[in-house]
Amino acid sequence: MTLISFARGFPGPDLLPIDEFGDCATAALARDGATALNYGPPLGYLPLREWLAERHDVDVSRVMITNGSLQAFSFIARHHVQAGAKVFVEAPCYDRSLLILRRLGAEVETVPLSDDGLDLDVLERALAETDGPSLVYTIPTFQNPSGRTLSEPNRRRLIEVARAHGAVILEDDPYGLLRFGGERLPRLFELAGGEGAMLLSSFSKTVAPGIRVGFAILPEELMGAMQTLVFENYVSPVMFVEATLHEFVSRGRFDPNVEAVQEALRVRRDAMISALAREMPEGTRWNEPDGGYFLWVDLPDGLSAESLLAQADEVGVAFIKGPDFFFDGGGDSSLRLAFSYERPEAIDEGISRLGKLVREAVAVPA
Amino acid sequence: MTLISFARGFPGPDLLPIDEFGDCATAALARDGATALNYGPPLGYLPLREWLAERHDVDVSRVMITNGSLQAFSFIARHHVQAGAKVFVEAPCYDRSLLILRRLGAEVETVPLSDDGLDLDVLERALAETDGPSLVYTIPTFQNPSGRTLSEPNRRRLIEVARAHGAVILEDDPYGLLRFGGERLPRLFELAGGEGAMLLSSFSKTVAPGIRVGFAILPEELMGAMQTLVFENYVSPVMFVEATLHEFVSRGRFDPNVEAVQEALRVRRDAMISALAREMPEGTRWNEPDGGYFLWVDLPDGLSAESLLAQADEVGVAFIKGPDFFFDGGGDSSLRLAFSYERPEAIDEGISRLGKLVREAVAVPA
Repeated sequence: MTLISFARGFPGPDLLPIDEFGDCATAALARDGATALNYGPPLGYLPLREWLAERHDVDVSRVMITNGSLQAFSFIARHHVQAGAKVFVEAPCYDRSLLILRRLGAEVETVPLSDDGLDLDVLERALAETDGPSLVYTIPTFQNPSGRTLSEPNRRRLIEVARAHGAVILEDDPYGLLRFGGERLPRLFELAGGEGAMLLSSFSKTVAPGIRVGFAILPEELMGAMQTLVFENYVSPVMFVEATLHEFVSRGRFDPNVEAVQEALRVRRDAMISALAREMPEGTRWNEPDGGYFLWVDLPDGLSAESLLAQADEVGVAFIKGPDFFFDGGGDSSLRLAFSYERPEAIDEGISRLGKLVREAVAVPA
Repeated sequence: MTLISFARGFPGPDLLPIDEFGDCATAALARDGATALNYGPPLGYLPLREWLAERHDVDVSRVMITNGSLQAFSFIARHHVQAGAKVFVEAPCYDRSLLILRRLGAEVETVPLSDDGLDLDVLERALAETDGPSLVYTIPTFQNPSGRTLSEPNRRRLIEVARAHGAVILEDDPYGLLRFGGERLPRLFELAGGEGAMLLSSFSKTVAPGIRVGFAILPEELMGAMQTLVFENYVSPVMFVEATLHEFVSRGRFDPNVEAVQEALRVRRDAMISALAREMPEGTRWNEPDGGYFLWVDLPDGLSAESLLAQADEVGVAFIKGPDFFFDGGGDSSLRLAFSYERPEAIDEGISRLGKLVREAVAVPA
């Protein structure tokens, strides 16, 4: 039986620009090969930094391109933790960021997510009790893992709360452009006018993960420290792939590609939601995000996601269990489903397999 | 006046496979695009790891590919320093490695280089006085910065000395294949049969730095720790560029490309040595390496390389001053010249400019 995976947040192969990217590489080399194939500046390929600066209406000196956005998160986190910052994270939170914070020995405080994102009452109280620097790490749009989105009024309030307590916001926004329903919300970074907020994003979900091009928009005063971290790791990021990506965006292929990805994701989400409605027993809850890669399921009767996972392998379906996304416990009866990878028919079949397991578990007296 | 740079170890644009690499990208995507553009395994693109494993006669499980070999050095150093290892480095030593060791707060002991590489009498005494784990970091072939090469008998002795004292050797070999004269010497890694020695290398000098593909061959027991470090930084290295490089090597383009680079470097080295012989005043010493990117100059009369550098900018020539390559002082009257970047005519002109400065400095009474 072929495994149907709702586990990792991978795009399906049909979402990747496989037919176009080689030609972009050839054109990039013809135009600027001596730059694309040599060592480059630590913050990345200048024409691509300029394109990003223009799109985000900032000075190019504030743009850092890294080999994937996790590398930028790692650098930013290292810098702030070394400066003694306490880090506020969402519960649940992106698991790879949690791993990094754990390994840094960061002082971490979790803030629960309500249905529309970060619980700001809890955050406000926690910040009020915090001395010294603090960093609020959030994925406000189509959050990983929950698929939840912070409402616009709460975005404005989050910025106010952070400002009132001198906290810096790190907005991680890999999914924001992948909206296939509802209205676009401004980024925290935009609402804050780029002050007191840092933006982290990536081309992994809008173009392809295999190019590993992420970026961050940071305050000027951080750029020196970031360059030092680059020099401690890789001299310069991969010029060849950044030049190729720059060719792709220069041809005007970025926005049409994003639109195609949005449409494919919408079809996949619809397939997953229809199948969940058909298969899941009463008491199961899930959300219906207007974009991104993930949705979040709460199992009925406090069923254990870990037990479910142990059985899932046998029936050929995979997901990530809730507890993996909590810094200090929680999510025992929840799971993250990625609808990004499998085709709609496979999603339907995978949810059938999963639904059968959940129905059987509900039928067994605890 | 155009700057003529002997500073950074960049290949000249004419040494880069600009015309071929785009076609390799297209072919790699046609063959394996769904892998090349998605997230991949933390240790790199499997077919390229297999190619490296075969060339180095090791199991593929021991091969790690990173975004540039400095990233692998950084991971390996972090791991060993955290395990309490004392690190022995060459004096002079590659400056970027020194920066990393400094920032890690590593306990570093320097071992002088004699004309044929690491001074083994000094190393042996130092190891005898060391308790606990130790790591010997060396570039035995066409060393950066000195261009020196450890002789074969001394290679054998280094392995014996390290074994006798339980030290692990980290052999950094980015230049070994760029030999254009003399006889090939076996790598330390080969002589040690892959035991007690780690190999670090890169495609930066054999193909192109802008692809940032480095690799390390490590003991099995280190691979788990390396994967964790990858997950803390970038999920997976850049699959797209590794697949493109794999296409390049699969077409049999690697060895011919290396031969073309060797020949270009030979011509550049010859140009630099002729010009040095013509321009430099008596008492200036330099070596004549049979490969690599660099040669090392000792100025006459203890002239200061730093003072020379201050004047060099005005006459349009650049180099790196000796002290940058010493962990705890030294090299005041030395400089590193890279002959890799400039074309032969520019090398000739640049050495003329430099020679004039040195002759003037010698003429001034101290």
